[in-house]
Amino acid sequence: MTGPYTQPLVYFFGQGRADGTAAMKEILGGKGAGLAEMTTIGIPVPPGFTIASSLCNHYIESNQFPKRLRVEVENTLQRLETATGKHFGDGDNPLLVSVRSGAAVSMPGMMETILNLGLNDITVEGLTRQSDNPRFAWDSYRRFVQMYGSVVFALSKRPFDHLLEEARQRCGAGRDIDLPLDEVQALVRKFKEVIRAETGREFPDDPVRQLWGAIAAVFESWNTRRAIDYRKLHDIPDSMGTAVNVVAMVFGNLGEDSGTGVTFSRDPSTGERTLYGEFLLNAQGEDVVSGSRTPLPIAALRDTLPHAYQELERVARTLERHFRDLQDMEFTIERGVLYMLQTRRGQRSGQAAVQVACDMVDEGLISEEEAVARIPPNDLDQLLHSTIDPTSRLDLLTTGLPASPGAACGTAVFDADRAEQMGRAGQPAILVRRETSPDDFHGMVLAKAILTARGGMTSHAAVVARGMGKPCVAGAQDLQVDEKANRFSVNGRSIGEGDWITVDGSTGKVFAGQAALVTPEPSGNFLRLMQWADRIRQLRVRVNADTPADAHRGRDFGAEGIGLCRTEHMFFDGERLSAMREMIVAPDTAGRERALAKLLPMQRADFEAIFRAMEGYPVTIRLLDPPLHEFLPHEEPETAALAVELDMPVEHLQTLIDRLQEVNPMLGLRGCRLGIVYPEITAMQVRAIFEAACTVASRKGRVMPEVMIPLTASVVEFRKQAFIVRQVAEEVFRERQITVPFLLGTMIELPRACVTADELAREAQFFSFGTNDLTQTTWGLSRDDAGRFLPHYLEQGVIEADPFQVLDQAGVGKLIQLACDLGRKTRNDLKLGICGEHGGEPGSVAFCDRLGMNYVSCSPFRVPIARLASAQAALAARGTMDRTRATV
Amino acid sequence: MTGPYTQPLVYFFGQGRADGTAAMKEILGGKGAGLAEMTTIGIPVPPGFTIASSLCNHYIESNQFPKRLRVEVENTLQRLETATGKHFGDGDNPLLVSVRSGAAVSMPGMMETILNLGLNDITVEGLTRQSDNPRFAWDSYRRFVQMYGSVVFALSKRPFDHLLEEARQRCGAGRDIDLPLDEVQALVRKFKEVIRAETGREFPDDPVRQLWGAIAAVFESWNTRRAIDYRKLHDIPDSMGTAVNVVAMVFGNLGEDSGTGVTFSRDPSTGERTLYGEFLLNAQGEDVVSGSRTPLPIAALRDTLPHAYQELERVARTLERHFRDLQDMEFTIERGVLYMLQTRRGQRSGQAAVQVACDMVDEGLISEEEAVARIPPNDLDQLLHSTIDPTSRLDLLTTGLPASPGAACGTAVFDADRAEQMGRAGQPAILVRRETSPDDFHGMVLAKAILTARGGMTSHAAVVARGMGKPCVAGAQDLQVDEKANRFSVNGRSIGEGDWITVDGSTGKVFAGQAALVTPEPSGNFLRLMQWADRIRQLRVRVNADTPADAHRGRDFGAEGIGLCRTEHMFFDGERLSAMREMIVAPDTAGRERALAKLLPMQRADFEAIFRAMEGYPVTIRLLDPPLHEFLPHEEPETAALAVELDMPVEHLQTLIDRLQEVNPMLGLRGCRLGIVYPEITAMQVRAIFEAACTVASRKGRVMPEVMIPLTASVVEFRKQAFIVRQVAEEVFRERQITVPFLLGTMIELPRACVTADELAREAQFFSFGTNDLTQTTWGLSRDDAGRFLPHYLEQGVIEADPFQVLDQAGVGKLIQLACDLGRKTRNDLKLGICGEHGGEPGSVAFCDRLGMNYVSCSPFRVPIARLASAQAALAARGTMDRTRATV
Repeated sequence: MTGPYTQPLVYFFGQGRADGTAAMKEILGGKGAGLAEMTTIGIPVPPGFTIASSLCNHYIESNQFPKRLRVEVENTLQRLETATGKHFGDGDNPLLVSVRSGAAVSMPGMMETILNLGLNDITVEGLTRQSDNPRFAWDSYRRFVQMYGSVVFALSKRPFDHLLEEARQRCGAGRDIDLPLDEVQALVRKFKEVIRAETGREFPDDPVRQLWGAIAAVFESWNTRRAIDYRKLHDIPDSMGTAVNVVAMVFGNLGEDSGTGVTFSRDPSTGERTLYGEFLLNAQGEDVVSGSRTPLPIAALRDTLPHAYQELERVARTLERHFRDLQDMEFTIERGVLYMLQTRRGQRSGQAAVQVACDMVDEGLISEEEAVARIPPNDLDQLLHSTIDPTSRLDLLTTGLPASPGAACGTAVFDADRAEQMGRAGQPAILVRRETSPDDFHGMVLAKAILTARGGMTSHAAVVARGMGKPCVAGAQDLQVDEKANRFSVNGRSIGEGDWITVDGSTGKVFAGQAALVTPEPSGNFLRLMQWADRIRQLRVRVNADTPADAHRGRDFGAEGIGLCRTEHMFFDGERLSAMREMIVAPDTAGRERALAKLLPMQRADFEAIFRAMEGYPVTIRLLDPPLHEFLPHEEPETAALAVELDMPVEHLQTLIDRLQEVNPMLGLRGCRLGIVYPEITAMQVRAIFEAACTVASRKGRVMPEVMIPLTASVVEFRKQAFIVRQVAEEVFRERQITVPFLLGTMIELPRACVTADELAREAQFFSFGTNDLTQTTWGLSRDDAGRFLPHYLEQGVIEADPFQVLDQAGVGKLIQLACDLGRKTRNDLKLGICGEHGGEPGSVAFCDRLGMNYVSCSPFRVPIARLASAQAALAARGTMDRTRATV
Repeated sequence: MTGPYTQPLVYFFGQGRADGTAAMKEILGGKGAGLAEMTTIGIPVPPGFTIASSLCNHYIESNQFPKRLRVEVENTLQRLETATGKHFGDGDNPLLVSVRSGAAVSMPGMMETILNLGLNDITVEGLTRQSDNPRFAWDSYRRFVQMYGSVVFALSKRPFDHLLEEARQRCGAGRDIDLPLDEVQALVRKFKEVIRAETGREFPDDPVRQLWGAIAAVFESWNTRRAIDYRKLHDIPDSMGTAVNVVAMVFGNLGEDSGTGVTFSRDPSTGERTLYGEFLLNAQGEDVVSGSRTPLPIAALRDTLPHAYQELERVARTLERHFRDLQDMEFTIERGVLYMLQTRRGQRSGQAAVQVACDMVDEGLISEEEAVARIPPNDLDQLLHSTIDPTSRLDLLTTGLPASPGAACGTAVFDADRAEQMGRAGQPAILVRRETSPDDFHGMVLAKAILTARGGMTSHAAVVARGMGKPCVAGAQDLQVDEKANRFSVNGRSIGEGDWITVDGSTGKVFAGQAALVTPEPSGNFLRLMQWADRIRQLRVRVNADTPADAHRGRDFGAEGIGLCRTEHMFFDGERLSAMREMIVAPDTAGRERALAKLLPMQRADFEAIFRAMEGYPVTIRLLDPPLHEFLPHEEPETAALAVELDMPVEHLQTLIDRLQEVNPMLGLRGCRLGIVYPEITAMQVRAIFEAACTVASRKGRVMPEVMIPLTASVVEFRKQAFIVRQVAEEVFRERQITVPFLLGTMIELPRACVTADELAREAQFFSFGTNDLTQTTWGLSRDDAGRFLPHYLEQGVIEADPFQVLDQAGVGKLIQLACDLGRKTRNDLKLGICGEHGGEPGSVAFCDRLGMNYVSCSPFRVPIARLASAQAALAARGTMDRTRATV
């Protein structure tokens, strides 16, 4: 409590002057700062004052106000009386005020408000005279006593509501305002009696006592259960406290030329430059909030009160010019005169965010940098994927992991063949599986969306779906999938084949039935914004693409190369899978080489198409990474079919499959370990890469392959694999009589690689951080199994975010930084990038920018997000970001 | 080649003086240094000279000798002629020499030797006169030409052997020496013809030319395939090179008063202070090597040539006094006169190492520190476990991982009940399983040894076996165990129940049949050595012990506390396992608490007994760590039995078990994650610990519990668990009205814990490095699955040692160092220890000592090894170790 004694505690605003400014949110709260700033710039605002938020916790702890506050409030009250020409307790011209909370961060509906403060048996007569409307005056008095009873005396609302309802029924009054005067007057008396009976205390008639009671109640409302819970949920510190705004009353309920409402300065869904909101004639704010009357769209105000509407439009434009952003405003019209009660930055949809930002650049309101700085990158998801119409009535079944964004509806199917069949017939199907395997691939291609009960954000289902830009909810733990019976049950419900479901891969939610979807249209503004972002950013953005189709999609989204081409995904379909399986079960090197020879032309053709799609941009190809058993059938009928195909006794095949099983496949025979145990696999893949590269180069195409060794733990592993790569590359160059420049580097995805990065960089020309696996090993945490306790961890605050979605900078990030530092110490032109899921997560992108990486790489649909996030990171590095953020 | 031009290239020894010393091994090789030193100290050594090893690679690369060498060799030859009074090429008194290789590191039999150099048609007459034995002289000449042909002219031995054999058969001569003179003379001519025919070159008659040819051949022998392979296998650098020793010939084949032999100065198996070796009368060195005649034990020399024997004994004692260690010597007796040809440090068994070191301390030869410094710690294993008699004839079936040391014989059994039954009946059984689970525990207790086909060095079988000090071979991949048929097949062999097998857990080897075993007897010397080690070492040594029995065994081996008490091992038997399973399948917290209440008194009783056994030494208790599914049955009959026990439908139980399965259990719901999801487990365990501690303390017992939170990744996890620990501890202290001091710390076994150790140390009072898991996560390598490629890695030299056996200092060690540094930065009295398998591995112990850790902890039978290794680490830190090593 040192601050409050050296800074003012109370900040007056009125008559075009204010003690506070918009920049003083911390002290005045959002509402108080807005009122002060509006006053200063000439917006019509009723005069008032704000009590600093720093007093809030002081009051809560000590249960008393500092003496200086009493002095300052008294002095400021005098300024308020002067400004309004009204006086507290004045029987002729009474000053009435509203008392509202207002923290630095918006906490809608969380804290208390008291209106009409200052009324008592004397001043109600003054209000009667002023308004020439006794029923209005007494109704205001009645509301005030009622509010005061529940807020300041903390009484239940029920006895008041009960008395009011009784009176209304007795008089047959539809609305409160229709009650006869004597009934209202009787209610005021009865309400005061309720207070006396329940608390043993008298309702205070003295407006100054009323005021202190209200201020205390607003401060105390900071500490109600629901406010505390809300803050916990939204990560708002308890120490922040709320300010208290005391504002001269204006009345929206003085007749049909009065009213109250809320409006955005532009449409927050579309960004259209037109007021968007709603209002009620002859009403006070709480009538809008309570929902007892249905408000009208703001456009209707143009006809009803055209002057007020014009004034509102003028105010909206002024505020937008001043704050240089979309505004969300509250207003009251008292007898045709507009008063603004609040303004703040308006929340908006992704589409509106882009539209507004671009329009404001065109209007000269903001710079292109500011436009780029103010779009939350993840909002772009809404521009790229279908979303559920927010007005839909939804029947939530369960929530899983948001594994691949977008929403889709379809009927549930439980096997891949059925999904494929329906897809070919043009019928929307959603493939529901306990988990997917390569055998499901053909069905996934034709399903509208994927839903799995097991597996994490990088399970087979999730990775494949993201690559295809198809919605996927993975790891919905509550789902009990009975694949034989073609149904799943969840929380007591049962869904069978043919039942409609809706899957939202952006939120992880699964609904019963067919929800209405909103499909985005690509806009020119989106492209402009991306261009601005591209001019600003330092980081290159690449795409994780495994097939020529992915590569093209990546280019369409602006990717400048492929950061991760997972060659194993090329093996997951049809005859490739067969050849792959033949290779895996081969008894010796010769057998493996025969099967690999079948795969060679397929891989070569894929690489050729990918190189062409990338038009000379770098393509980082990761050599075979997953454990071989991932390619083998998991169930008996498939094993039997494979045995026939391979002309092998099924028992023998089963033994081979069993032998390949691993206790911890994540930590088993995979990555470069495969290439070291079976060098012929590396040789085949490298041959495919360089034959494809030579073919493209020999037809004058540009091509820049970057061969990446996966899961390197020690420089010796790298050296062994690098030897094969260079040897085969030179062989191919000799055969084709052309040389293609290439880089040879490694994925950094093990802690050991990070701590020995200086040695690795002696041999490797680039590092690409595989942050998925690096997170798994650094935390000792399997993505596939974390679902059983990560929710507990998030709930109990052990972690702030799922480390597979948001890079754990304090832990994994330290290892990455160490690896970058050690690596560049040995090789100062070491190329650095990231290719895990985090490559498209804005906070993680900013981290990569700070470390001076060369690029980030992510799934196709996240490329625009990464481009925007990179630009914002660059602006933040220049210090521009903070400035532009502070003004919005 | 700068060195050789500034230092002498040739080092003479003879007549009691030598240019070299024992310290010049790098230059002179082991043999040359020994010859020089022996000469200086008055041991009878034939004179000669050594050519520096630095010339070896120079010659190999350039194929020529530097001019300076020719000059130095000529000069030194003159000194040799003076010393011997003989001359090269002299028909009356010819100088004959041997030419032998000799590198700084012994490479037995790897390189070349030429004897009798200097003989030609003229000098053979001189030798005839000198020896008065023409047949001897010509036989020597024959041998020389034969050797020269194969070594210098690199001819096949076959034509020479063929001619010799032919002659022998023709004359009916049993031994070469029995051939008539004219036959021998004919052979010399024929051999020279072979050389001429095969090479087109003449055998050189000039002794100086002979010498240069021999020197070149010795240098070249450094680069033969087998020498290169040997060096690779033993990690000897190619750059070392070999020296060349040219020594005046003495003849052990001049009659029955001559001979040659090898001897140790003490028995290298037992350490007994008596000459131990063998000799041949009337023979040259290669007769011993070739095995064509059977040598006699050295004791027989005492009767045959008593003077020579006494002289040999005197020389052995002199050499021991001089070199202060057991010597391994070669000698020749020429007409009753002893000449020493080589001396070096003698290899010895573990038992002999201890015996010799202690005896030498008693004899005043070495200090206690030197005794401690010179015992390879792992040799102690031989003193603690049974070993296979090295003279046994063995029938190797396969090799698995050496999971728990010692050897045992028994008949194979395939289930735990049968093992128990046989054990109770006093019949030796070896339990063979695909892998073991807690359900096998009762059988493991009574089996002689365990053999598994799957699982690594820290699989269930391995950990339990080590704890019990029982031999175990784990992860014998070639084994196909058919548990239903009660047999296993391996490499085409089939072993059924009742068949004898022998298991060597020190080497991982499995044999068919019943091998003879050697059972060590504990010796007083062993205890003395341990006492000396304890006086020297800085590191404390603790034991990993999970039961009161383990704790007692640990104390017996000298452990100063428990570094790791794995509480889960207490749950693996009988009614405990039942209560544990009941807890796991309980539907809610109340159900879990009911089951935990049953476990509480059992854990408390265990802790009480453990605290008492440890007599106030610290006991580090790790809270529950493994995934819960480890406690559940894996197979159907057991599941059915459990369902009956729990009064639960078997389908329901199976569903619960299935749900707990994990894709990567190593990275799943385990460690402190369990305690965070189920705080009641932590609370029960902590209550058991402190109730036990209070009971012991209240009866005047000393007790020092250290509560350890496992698998911590972030300080928040630690804080949450620490809160429960402190809360429950205080509850118990209040209830019992006594307070027990305790420490609260964490296991460091995840890379994230290492990089955030500064934060962890703010809360944790000690760190115990769990290097098993830390190795797994740092390398991304599952111990259970590594068996499929680690052998490839070792074979291809990707890694130098299994990182689960020898701490990977370059990778895992860097993280440990980082954690120590960061941790001590925050808390300067942070207690640091290691409790992984590496805690008993000498190199890793030295690493812990260098980092300034407080203690290491290992399984009971490795405690003595850790004590010795710690002492050696302390000596190394003082610089004493190097000095004592250099002199031995």
